[in-house]
Amino acid sequence: MGFGTRLKVTLFGSSHGPEVGVVVDGFPAGVPVREGDIQADLDRRSPVGRRTATKRQEPDRLVLESGVSGGLSTGGAIRAHVANEDVDRSVYERLRWTPRPGHADYPARERYGDSADLSGGGIFSGRMTVGLVIAGALARGVLEPRGIEAVAFTRSIGTIQFDPDLDTPIPSLRENSEQNEIGCPDPATAVQMEAAIGAARREGDSLGGVIECRVSGVPVGLGEPFFDSVESEIAHLAFSIPAVKGVEFGDGFAAASRRGSQHNDPFYWDGDRVRTRTNHSGGILGGLTTGDPVVFRVAVKPTSSIARPQETVDLRTRTRAEIVVGGRHDPCIVPRAVVVVESIARLAIADLGLRGGFR
Amino acid sequence: MGFGTRLKVTLFGSSHGPEVGVVVDGFPAGVPVREGDIQADLDRRSPVGRRTATKRQEPDRLVLESGVSGGLSTGGAIRAHVANEDVDRSVYERLRWTPRPGHADYPARERYGDSADLSGGGIFSGRMTVGLVIAGALARGVLEPRGIEAVAFTRSIGTIQFDPDLDTPIPSLRENSEQNEIGCPDPATAVQMEAAIGAARREGDSLGGVIECRVSGVPVGLGEPFFDSVESEIAHLAFSIPAVKGVEFGDGFAAASRRGSQHNDPFYWDGDRVRTRTNHSGGILGGLTTGDPVVFRVAVKPTSSIARPQETVDLRTRTRAEIVVGGRHDPCIVPRAVVVVESIARLAIADLGLRGGFR
Amino acid sequence: MGFGTRLKVTLFGSSHGPEVGVVVDGFPAGVPVREGDIQADLDRRSPVGRRTATKRQEPDRLVLESGVSGGLSTGGAIRAHVANEDVDRSVYERLRWTPRPGHADYPARERYGDSADLSGGGIFSGRMTVGLVIAGALARGVLEPRGIEAVAFTRSIGTIQFDPDLDTPIPSLRENSEQNEIGCPDPATAVQMEAAIGAARREGDSLGGVIECRVSGVPVGLGEPFFDSVESEIAHLAFSIPAVKGVEFGDGFAAASRRGSQHNDPFYWDGDRVRTRTNHSGGILGGLTTGDPVVFRVAVKPTSSIARPQETVDLRTRTRAEIVVGGRHDPCIVPRAVVVVESIARLAIADLGLRGGFR
Amino acid sequence: MGFGTRLKVTLFGSSHGPEVGVVVDGFPAGVPVREGDIQADLDRRSPVGRRTATKRQEPDRLVLESGVSGGLSTGGAIRAHVANEDVDRSVYERLRWTPRPGHADYPARERYGDSADLSGGGIFSGRMTVGLVIAGALARGVLEPRGIEAVAFTRSIGTIQFDPDLDTPIPSLRENSEQNEIGCPDPATAVQMEAAIGAARREGDSLGGVIECRVSGVPVGLGEPFFDSVESEIAHLAFSIPAVKGVEFGDGFAAASRRGSQHNDPFYWDGDRVRTRTNHSGGILGGLTTGDPVVFRVAVKPTSSIARPQETVDLRTRTRAEIVVGGRHDPCIVPRAVVVVESIARLAIADLGLRGGFR
Repeated sequence: MGFGTRLKVTLFGSSHGPEVGVVVDGFPAGVPVREGDIQADLDRRSPVGRRTATKRQEPDRLVLESGVSGGLSTGGAIRAHVANEDVDRSVYERLRWTPRPGHADYPARERYGDSADLSGGGIFSGRMTVGLVIAGALARGVLEPRGIEAVAFTRSIGTIQFDPDLDTPIPSLRENSEQNEIGCPDPATAVQMEAAIGAARREGDSLGGVIECRVSGVPVGLGEPFFDSVESEIAHLAFSIPAVKGVEFGDGFAAASRRGSQHNDPFYWDGDRVRTRTNHSGGILGGLTTGDPVVFRVAVKPTSSIARPQETVDLRTRTRAEIVVGGRHDPCIVPRAVVVVESIARLAIADLGLRGGFR
Repeated sequence: MGFGTRLKVTLFGSSHGPEVGVVVDGFPAGVPVREGDIQADLDRRSPVGRRTATKRQEPDRLVLESGVSGGLSTGGAIRAHVANEDVDRSVYERLRWTPRPGHADYPARERYGDSADLSGGGIFSGRMTVGLVIAGALARGVLEPRGIEAVAFTRSIGTIQFDPDLDTPIPSLRENSEQNEIGCPDPATAVQMEAAIGAARREGDSLGGVIECRVSGVPVGLGEPFFDSVESEIAHLAFSIPAVKGVEFGDGFAAASRRGSQHNDPFYWDGDRVRTRTNHSGGILGGLTTGDPVVFRVAVKPTSSIARPQETVDLRTRTRAEIVVGGRHDPCIVPRAVVVVESIARLAIADLGLRGGFR
Repeated sequence: MGFGTRLKVTLFGSSHGPEVGVVVDGFPAGVPVREGDIQADLDRRSPVGRRTATKRQEPDRLVLESGVSGGLSTGGAIRAHVANEDVDRSVYERLRWTPRPGHADYPARERYGDSADLSGGGIFSGRMTVGLVIAGALARGVLEPRGIEAVAFTRSIGTIQFDPDLDTPIPSLRENSEQNEIGCPDPATAVQMEAAIGAARREGDSLGGVIECRVSGVPVGLGEPFFDSVESEIAHLAFSIPAVKGVEFGDGFAAASRRGSQHNDPFYWDGDRVRTRTNHSGGILGGLTTGDPVVFRVAVKPTSSIARPQETVDLRTRTRAEIVVGGRHDPCIVPRAVVVVESIARLAIADLGLRGGFR
Repeated sequence: MGFGTRLKVTLFGSSHGPEVGVVVDGFPAGVPVREGDIQADLDRRSPVGRRTATKRQEPDRLVLESGVSGGLSTGGAIRAHVANEDVDRSVYERLRWTPRPGHADYPARERYGDSADLSGGGIFSGRMTVGLVIAGALARGVLEPRGIEAVAFTRSIGTIQFDPDLDTPIPSLRENSEQNEIGCPDPATAVQMEAAIGAARREGDSLGGVIECRVSGVPVGLGEPFFDSVESEIAHLAFSIPAVKGVEFGDGFAAASRRGSQHNDPFYWDGDRVRTRTNHSGGILGGLTTGDPVVFRVAVKPTSSIARPQETVDLRTRTRAEIVVGGRHDPCIVPRAVVVVESIARLAIADLGLRGGFR
């Protein structure tokens, strides 16, 4: 469970084991590492204190052991984790032979056999994203001195959508999104989204949504030709986040129904900088950044664990079965996934930058 | 310009150099390699004889030099290429200092400087996909004996769309798509799509579209946990194809506005096999295959080269410029990209299979 | 600080930080993991209770957190570490600007600057091999069910040498080597070696030596052609062990002065198995295993930290300096490195096996 | 068959196929590529015109197709090959079932089965090193502008040895080595070596030897901590060269019998540069370069193909067999391997430099 060329991330732990965490190898020496900033990102992912989230209550306190000395990275691998404190395995034992629809249970059991630890989703759980958030927060130290800023926000929940203007400054997007637990920059929409999640929960059902991420300040020409394009790297990481089913850049799928004369972004001189009048491309041409903000969206499916009875199979008796998935689940994971999407954007840009995109 | 863990693909050549091609390292020994089958896939990508394509006329004859002996792979790296025969660089010299909107010209020049060979798109050109098609055709030899079959087809061009039933057998999809040069399985829709492309061309404009790909026969549990999920690997390769701006699996972006009770696919026993009653997941749960067909869609932007005047910058004089992109271009590359999408699906599945997904 | 293709090892920690440890990613699910066996290998590396070792007294208790459940690997990454308990940084502060001859201090400071944590060797310390030993002990679980057994032993210390017959059974080599703290299979030679180490220590000096490793039961044909030959993989790992300056297989450097008619190993039928009458090749032809025991030797330089005054430079004042390296050091690290060499042999064979060498 | 992190080398072709060659991916843009220089290195490897080499006469004309335009690298992958012109497969057909002692025939057949192309050694042949020589010659363009110079030379053939002083300037070593076909910098020793090779040939036998390589001008601190030390990278590549059985750096195996007070290299100020008074370390401490010349030696076994009858097995009849290896072989490959060793040194240094060692 690793990714990255210069900044190499390996995730360890599992949903119901003693911990989840990450080792980041290849992190440059001398970069400031502020534990408070990492903890702040972990808190944005945490369910604690959210009305719309699971009742599983884990404070997710960062433990940072290796690779940092005196507040600076040493050049060695950085290891950090968070303990799993509120684990209830009993629910999962009951589901041992009846795979939950929408979960990895069935293919994982076929692949790994009985020794696979699937409790709580095991290594397939969304809880593994704790390591991505830690790694993404570390990458801030590489990006921020270069003026590179990322923000992700909730763009839609179910059928409720807010589409902020492309010119909205990133600090204002960030500030407004953090005013509500939904992560939506528009307060009125956030209220509607929260209501929709509450309604789904009361009906024993769940909702999905779309998260958008924008990254400004990226230098021109970042990305590796062909296979390791900015799109390929971001998408690779985004699709590793459980529940993501689609990724698009700039106009994305909408571009497919436009004409070239509508879609192409004209270049112009903005003082001594080349810029584009529009940003249909999402800041990426030929897989390389143009200097305009990188913009992408990620589709998140509705939470697979729902309180309603569902049809499944019994793998022992080879008969039909019906299950009600117990445990404590989010009726919509979109708000908590916002910081995860932001984190993988940071990771991808930092890795490509260290591979040659920073000049 | 390489990708893959077991099946390692490296692309070489450039649009206006002497050749484009591929080296595939890690290809198992003893696999049948039929040059005719590779040539057939190259022909599906070729513009020759198409009414809707560029007038650049290259027969793209396969030259297969290394790694095959007596019709079987030897276990050594396989090298193959196609000569560039119909190269006209003059057009590009004129555009040297005025980057074309929608192309990699500007970021590539910033990154690589004057030594970058950008003529005809250089290493960023769609012509590099010749190597992907060759590699994907080689992967057939690994997949077909295992009963794994892939088909890609044109799902939409501009606003015209055809959405074949999920139950349509893959051989029939293939056969019907190959009846027309659009690669659409429905003949009536194909006629409309061809007319739309013709209209765009006459107006000096271009069109995009959506390509769908389905892969059947994939064993349960293929894919590597978390980072190298089936979605991550396919998306990584898909976003390396020039002009792709979105990738989605199963219901994709539509899943974001559904409820869990609508989206989850119930399991049932089909004889002694576990299957799902629906396939909203696109045959992938937790990043692993379920045994149902893998289904994904790729959004292709409208061709960036259009015959209309476009605003750009002059990088020498630092003034505004206007260009009309000459050269010979496809008004819509979707039909020729169908086989490329099919090829990267084969590559991703074969690589993940050799990594442990085949049992 | 990572290595491996299927079995991916990342080391974390540093000599004087809170811990040293390892993450092993790609470890197969369902393999027995016995903490006692890992601890036993760590104990073979530990200085505790050795007359010939450093006075730094660390029990090196294994802490195994992730990737194991109910005594079996889960398929997730395995994380384990050992705390650094007996750290005395004061000695190193004094040496901050006067690099120790024979150590990484000078080049590491040039490369990483002041933020590099060089205390006690930092990430360049021999203490990092704790992670290799843990990983090698884990690899036992992959190798032993296949009948693959490795043993390393001390072949020479300074000018004292013992060269066991190639026919000596591996269990007897192992048993005899573990009878003494030198790790030499001949008791009389071990006594002489211990005396030589004691003499060097009293003179404020240090000794090097040669470690030999033999691996039996390796299947025929393990290894990847050309670049990832068995020799390349073992040598890559062996040269990562601090203080290793030479690696040779089979006859090694002696082969350079023999004739082909002396060096070639004739094949013969041993029942229904092909074997070789001699093993000058070290069990490797063309980079692939022959089925005969893999045999290699590693040259270990004398410990760089000696109690005598040494000439060096003062990097602040740009003048000549003289230092006496304090701290607590081994006068000869060969005996403690034996298990490290055995561990990297296991890692290399297990990784190549999982890449295709096991059939 | 690939290696490298930034400079990625993939070898293709085989001994008796149509070609042997290389793709170098990740080569920086704008580097001068002089075909004459590459050809000159290929000529140093060629048997043509040598009294001591095989009678197989191949001019090995470089064909460079991709990645170079107007004498400069373009940033795309560079592909080059050499045709196999003087192939005589008949000899190998006769040996199909009787593996040659000392060759990869037996383990390769076990691993790859009948489809493996073993003719002339197939992908295990020394002929594959043509690609290494091309890649190493390309790396000159990266190294020489930085003042990094490598030279390899023949240090011993059989029992005849010449050990040039460590202070000998590299240009003089190079010039003197190129005066004779043995590649030995001392003319008198070269005459003896040539006589010894002639004698071995007349007796139907073969000789091995030792090649030394020195690299000057390497910046301080090049190398990646722990696993990708300079020693690990050079050794990995060196052991991929067929017939190499040992690699040592600086004092190498001799260091094992020295004391720390003899082996440590004292630092001193040479003007404003830190240097070492001796170079027992081979220019490498803690896996990083010290700024002193990198020095390593490689042991080459005697050629496995000899004209005398040898015992082997018949794999069909499962009986004893005797073979006389026909074909046209070098009685000693050391002289032709000199440039290969020099090439892999360049590759390793260039790759580590591009990974961060160049500053």
